[in-house]
Amino acid sequence: MIFLTKYIVVYDISDDYKRSRLADELFRLGLSRIQRSAFAGDIDPQRIKDLIRVLSRYLSSERDVIHVFRLGIRDWENRIVIGREWGVGDGSKTIIL
Amino acid sequence: MIFLTKYIVVYDISDDYKRSRLADELFRLGLSRIQRSAFAGDIDPQRIKDLIRVLSRYLSSERDVIHVFRLGIRDWENRIVIGREWGVGDGSKTIIL
Repeated sequence: MIFLTKYIVVYDISDDYKRSRLADELFRLGLSRIQRSAFAGDIDPQRIKDLIRVLSRYLSSERDVIHVFRLGIRDWENRIVIGREWGVGDGSKTIIL
Repeated sequence: MIFLTKYIVVYDISDDYKRSRLADELFRLGLSRIQRSAFAGDIDPQRIKDLIRVLSRYLSSERDVIHVFRLGIRDWENRIVIGREWGVGDGSKTIIL
């Protein structure tokens, strides 16, 4: 049985090509883009080490950094979105337009 | 008595001036910059509505969006940082360089 947990991935990658490939990778992993440089989705916690190894390939500058946050489902559902969130569409968030 | 809760603020603001002013505002609110467009810090949950009102002033394009996530202290401490995190320095995070 697989227990999925919500994660958000936020990145600051200076190289345009690497940043674009990283976004492709996150889509491939089944995450949804919630804003230009942030994705969210359900991941099996046992696969997090693989995820880290994959994501670390996209760093090329000393200033590049990627954060991965585990988020309780309640914290995810109670997230606040000011403006228009990119494609998630679970309808449970607080949106302020 | 004030109960503080950890929040992270992640933004995608297209206008350079507004984006820079938003960062100033987040510093003013006592948050720490963890990457170029993401801040983290402790906020009194009762003041979140004020925060939202303040942050919403920095949106100017239809594509602009700001996410505010409440994060359990354990989820914060277990955050994964791939690369070098900007100034937080609580020493409790998982860092992969």
